[in-house]
Amino acid sequence: MATDSWVNETLYSDWGQRFLVKRELARVQSPFQDIMVFESTSHGRVMLLDGVVQITEADEFVYQEMLTHVPLLAHGDAKRVLIIGAGDGGVLRRVLEHRNVEKAVMVEIDGEVIRLAKEFLPGVAGDAWNDPRAEVIVGDGIDYVRKAAPASFDVVIVDSTDPIGVGEVLFTDEFYENAARLLSDHGLIVNQCGVPAMQAEELRDTSLRRKQFFADVWAFVAAVPTYVGGFMTLGWSAKDPATRHVTVEQVRERAEHAGIIGKTRYWTPEIQVGAFHLPPYISEHLPKA
Amino acid sequence: MATDSWVNETLYSDWGQRFLVKRELARVQSPFQDIMVFESTSHGRVMLLDGVVQITEADEFVYQEMLTHVPLLAHGDAKRVLIIGAGDGGVLRRVLEHRNVEKAVMVEIDGEVIRLAKEFLPGVAGDAWNDPRAEVIVGDGIDYVRKAAPASFDVVIVDSTDPIGVGEVLFTDEFYENAARLLSDHGLIVNQCGVPAMQAEELRDTSLRRKQFFADVWAFVAAVPTYVGGFMTLGWSAKDPATRHVTVEQVRERAEHAGIIGKTRYWTPEIQVGAFHLPPYISEHLPKA
Repeated sequence: MATDSWVNETLYSDWGQRFLVKRELARVQSPFQDIMVFESTSHGRVMLLDGVVQITEADEFVYQEMLTHVPLLAHGDAKRVLIIGAGDGGVLRRVLEHRNVEKAVMVEIDGEVIRLAKEFLPGVAGDAWNDPRAEVIVGDGIDYVRKAAPASFDVVIVDSTDPIGVGEVLFTDEFYENAARLLSDHGLIVNQCGVPAMQAEELRDTSLRRKQFFADVWAFVAAVPTYVGGFMTLGWSAKDPATRHVTVEQVRERAEHAGIIGKTRYWTPEIQVGAFHLPPYISEHLPKA
Repeated sequence: MATDSWVNETLYSDWGQRFLVKRELARVQSPFQDIMVFESTSHGRVMLLDGVVQITEADEFVYQEMLTHVPLLAHGDAKRVLIIGAGDGGVLRRVLEHRNVEKAVMVEIDGEVIRLAKEFLPGVAGDAWNDPRAEVIVGDGIDYVRKAAPASFDVVIVDSTDPIGVGEVLFTDEFYENAARLLSDHGLIVNQCGVPAMQAEELRDTSLRRKQFFADVWAFVAAVPTYVGGFMTLGWSAKDPATRHVTVEQVRERAEHAGIIGKTRYWTPEIQVGAFHLPPYISEHLPKA
């Protein structure tokens, strides 16, 4: 097998995963990043941004379900949801699965990601693009949150790249301060915080930043097969500390009401509640209460 | 960087992890397998058997803690523990951390694995090799369980390679039948069952086999950074179905009594109980109750 049949992820300089490539589907240099889509033999289609795996058809459900269902069902009555990034449309689709959601605004900076996802990963978003409750904006997330009206959203979901390159502004004080302002009274924001076995500083630094603007800062975990390195952490910042402390029974009842039960392959009410119990090697990077 | 500075794991033909190698420490063809130990820049020292990662210094605690503390604390009064495989000594060390354990017998087929672990990974087992409660046998696990007296152990821990090559006999009907025989009334056996996102058949097939000899067959999960592919499953087979259903409070009390609290970096009582709540994509491979 020739070496050029493999794609090596370049997230870390000295460790990472590699995929055998069946065929390359697209390679585009957008104004923001290098986008690659290929067909793997192991994980179906895969999209990379600047050499880092963003999504594979085989395991996207893990990340999307946890990033979406956990905050919406912890909130319990989220009607307006803001999604930053997530250009593949997978989070948008999961948000709109919740019957009680009235409006989902998605702001993705790179229109090429949306275009390539629609063309090569159509199953990820399904019909979400055409849902009348969806508003998809190709634009700058930092700019959007700056201008958004106070208390205009109940939940914000940030599905960004790591805090390098185009995603860096989504990890700043300014971004979190604006997010706090645009959230309603019991609002909360979740954001991807990397894989702490490899990138503990990402969790530690963003948690400290978020702690300036939110009463309750914590994280929950998901084991995403192709975000290699053990648990990925999803950052949790809520205005009301009580929001995090839901029971399995409460979550199940809300999920039944929202129409989520039976539709998931990773998320369950038990896994939602359990995901906030962190291994010490992860919790040691979070601010003390 | 020359390509030969990287080691590619060969577990799957079309996907896997790679490590940048600082220096190779040992490469031995034993009568059973190809053993390699190298120093990585990302994960400290790493041992491979037949090209498959067995242990890294950076993350061995995840697997060892879950494979050991979960069964011992679920049992609650394990005095005699049989370990099959685990030649690096890490499980032996964790078993002996439990004050109430009176005897730990470890049967590893490949003496070269023990020799190389003692030389190049001395921190993994620490002083466990010299503990008067430890009996280390270089020999065949299948043969040992065949000859062991009935009800001679409370817990069996199988830390094997996947069911290919030398580890294959540890996944057979004969092995599990003998394990059931040598276990005491409330006894249980745990065994590594692979990463179900990639190797679901390993979990499915061994669970069906174990179901023939144990009243309660299930699995629990651990997110091991270098067993890439999301959750690894650890198979659970108990004579008494009640054994699995311990509460967080019971586990904590037993762990305090055993002297485990505060010594772990992944395991906690909450994580122990939560690890039995499986994502649907995993539980669908287990036998119906």
